[in-house]
Amino acid sequence: MVLGLVLFRTFQPCYLVYHPSHLFFLVARLENVDLLPLGANNVLVKMLAAPINPSDINMIQGTYAILPDLPAVGGNEGVAQVVEVGSQVKSLKTGDWVIPKDAGLGTWRTEAVLAENDVISLPNDIPLLSAATLGVNPCTALRMLSDFEDLKPGDSVIQNAANSGVGQAVIQIAAARGINSINVVRDRPEFTQLSDRLKAIGATHVIKEEALRRPEIKELFKICPKPKLALNGVGGKSATELLRHLQLGGSMVTYGGMAKQPVTVPVSALIFKDVKVRGFWVTQWKKDHSKDERAFRVMLDELCNLIKQGKLTAPACTEVGLQDYSKALDAAMQPFTSAKQILIM
Amino acid sequence: MVLGLVLFRTFQPCYLVYHPSHLFFLVARLENVDLLPLGANNVLVKMLAAPINPSDINMIQGTYAILPDLPAVGGNEGVAQVVEVGSQVKSLKTGDWVIPKDAGLGTWRTEAVLAENDVISLPNDIPLLSAATLGVNPCTALRMLSDFEDLKPGDSVIQNAANSGVGQAVIQIAAARGINSINVVRDRPEFTQLSDRLKAIGATHVIKEEALRRPEIKELFKICPKPKLALNGVGGKSATELLRHLQLGGSMVTYGGMAKQPVTVPVSALIFKDVKVRGFWVTQWKKDHSKDERAFRVMLDELCNLIKQGKLTAPACTEVGLQDYSKALDAAMQPFTSAKQILIM
Repeated sequence: MVLGLVLFRTFQPCYLVYHPSHLFFLVARLENVDLLPLGANNVLVKMLAAPINPSDINMIQGTYAILPDLPAVGGNEGVAQVVEVGSQVKSLKTGDWVIPKDAGLGTWRTEAVLAENDVISLPNDIPLLSAATLGVNPCTALRMLSDFEDLKPGDSVIQNAANSGVGQAVIQIAAARGINSINVVRDRPEFTQLSDRLKAIGATHVIKEEALRRPEIKELFKICPKPKLALNGVGGKSATELLRHLQLGGSMVTYGGMAKQPVTVPVSALIFKDVKVRGFWVTQWKKDHSKDERAFRVMLDELCNLIKQGKLTAPACTEVGLQDYSKALDAAMQPFTSAKQILIM
Repeated sequence: MVLGLVLFRTFQPCYLVYHPSHLFFLVARLENVDLLPLGANNVLVKMLAAPINPSDINMIQGTYAILPDLPAVGGNEGVAQVVEVGSQVKSLKTGDWVIPKDAGLGTWRTEAVLAENDVISLPNDIPLLSAATLGVNPCTALRMLSDFEDLKPGDSVIQNAANSGVGQAVIQIAAARGINSINVVRDRPEFTQLSDRLKAIGATHVIKEEALRRPEIKELFKICPKPKLALNGVGGKSATELLRHLQLGGSMVTYGGMAKQPVTVPVSALIFKDVKVRGFWVTQWKKDHSKDERAFRVMLDELCNLIKQGKLTAPACTEVGLQDYSKALDAAMQPFTSAKQILIM
């Protein structure tokens, strides 16, 4: 039996959330799903593990830019093992690990028949949780650190949401490149433990959001150059604070909006400080590079090498059996959640 | 007698405005000023005409990024005629018209001894008011139309403050390049006359700010492509409205903040529409290009050619004798002012 966690349209208030922009409710239910017949260019895969990402929750809540035709199996990321290949398949063989090339594949299921071209292989000697969470957050982190400013060893990057999946990948990739990271997190009772944990994976500085507004922050910039790059996963005041500390001519890149508030930019920062305010969406990057796999391959090779060297680890994860999906979805929707929910098939 | 309109620091409330960031008041007074002796690399010039720009007012009001050491002769732009040249001067001769290469020269005066390298020559067969107002607004307009998006004939640009000095130059340069301009102005009793006047100089569309928020605006984009570039001289809600109509991947460039409110950017516009939010300051551009005069020369040649072809005219100006400076400063500080004050020496 092939099981899939299917998102349905419903007009009854029910589990999961009202979808304001589409005037219906979304519900997720574990269902028997059909397998397509295995064509010449298809592969049959067994899903191994698939995360519940913030963007999945946003999609369910209607605040994301894309929504599949419903009903549809949920999940946009995850790692699968190839079980059988069609007669024309050249790039993959039985036993290979694969991840989706693009969003929308429906990874919350036990098995699937996919097009060879919809997936890309990974080495299968990296940790399962690293493979399951490689395609979205570490790719977002690597691209943002590479494509907006020319960061050299000794330069600085500042980020909020430093404890998020993207944030932890930023810390580790920056550290591997010799780039200082200034990591901003919301205050919390266990701040010291969190700070220690982020420093253990390579964070140069960990500061509370409130500290960013205090004059004492100037002391930090006596020992650490002002950042050329700011990475914003929050929006609102938090983003404005990042901007204040940016170097002349630096860039702020927004990849998320957890605070559900816009980015507010003082006119003087644009005109007199020449700050550049940009956005990044890894799904669009993948679309833009879908015709030529090489850029994606180069990026995955770099990330897998970091993983093998122990320089890039998966974020804190909670593994949950697919049958317990509603527990995992509930947990993923909690604020201040610091472990990523991973469905294990 | 050489007269200069000198800005003084004062601690008495007086004419002109409290300077909040510097804790003193600025006052402007017509004074006798000294002429430097004419060195080998100097030129003696007679100022002909010098505008009062919004940035001069901002400087006086303390909202501008630069402030000269006080007391200082005010004015950052204007045209002068060379009266005498030092023995080593090569690029200039008596009778030449010159404009400042950079801000801060103090143009509100009757005569000055300047370094040859502080000024750049203009053809003296263009209208005086065009020469007096060429170095800031038309240069800002040309650079913003050239340096942020690759605009081709048939493409569109949208701008607010379309009736400003920069706005009118944008309209004319865009028209000369075959680029559609969508021009947003605040509603006013004489809207139709203003619209007719802007269309007469080349505006493709002139719309009221309110119209930009109405669904009917969609009709406009059936006959005119969505803009790749938005030019923002206002900030606040007006800027957010410009952003809403930008093409995927387009740029908004902020050069002014008349509304004295920040630019607010929805997170979704950054992530899903990939809009780029930038700023432009012509003073910085001039600094960045001060070592190599060619880029400035190429730009002035292009602008002077447009002037000679009748495709670029000075904005509506009110000529005021230097003696009547306080009338001119008062007028320049009025909201909804639509004629630029030009001091005539």
